Amino acid sequence: MGSHAQDAPAGPVGPYEPPYYVAVFTTVRTQEQSGYGETNARMEELVKDVPGYLGMDHAQTPGGLGITVGYFRDAEALTEWRTHAEHRAAQKRGRAEWYRSYTLHVAKVERSSGFTRAQEPSTG
Amino acid sequence: MGSHAQDAPAGPVGPYEPPYYVAVFTTVRTQEQSGYGETNARMEELVKDVPGYLGMDHAQTPGGLGITVGYFRDAEALTEWRTHAEHRAAQKRGRAEWYRSYTLHVAKVERSSGFTRAQEPSTG
Repeated sequence: MGSHAQDAPAGPVGPYEPPYYVAVFTTVRTQEQSGYGETNARMEELVKDVPGYLGMDHAQTPGGLGITVGYFRDAEALTEWRTHAEHRAAQKRGRAEWYRSYTLHVAKVERSSGFTRAQEPSTG
Repeated sequence: MGSHAQDAPAGPVGPYEPPYYVAVFTTVRTQEQSGYGETNARMEELVKDVPGYLGMDHAQTPGGLGITVGYFRDAEALTEWRTHAEHRAAQKRGRAEWYRSYTLHVAKVERSSGFTRAQEPSTG
């Protein structure tokens, strides 16, 4: 179970204990986004069933770049996700409709660190 | 020299030829952002002088998560940037003022790929 600060955005996730893998997916989208939201939500559910899936971060500049970072324990977990039949269908539709351009970087994490500010006293 | 599509957001950068390094920096910011914009702009200029710096992607969900991904040819380039005196001072100020929490993942890219949609005919 995670704990979340109240009244604050969730995340970022991690850091995890290296080694682990990141898939950095950077996108610029087209004007045609029908079906994107539903498919994206479905993928976020499906990936949780992949053994070795650790978590995900996502940021989207309005009208600009989107970045999704998926975290996986090992290369096998990433391969399972990449080749998942329903995910493959979504990738194909993405190229046909939703993405103007994207880049995928798959990398093995060697070092990670994190910082969390001390909680301010609650007035609640 | 790069070429950019007209009337469209820039990027994403890459893919580059592996191996190379990514530094994935995920952040949630505080309410206190005075000086952040100027410092960020200065860092974006400074990093370009680091030998082996390849490029950067950034996305920011309003009120939510920010993700910056820096791309470097090798671990030495990343070390030079991490330990740059002016960058160190900015990191320190970030922890004191601008960031509620952040995670940094440093990883060696093993595989990358990209997709760019064929240009639509210009009416200009």
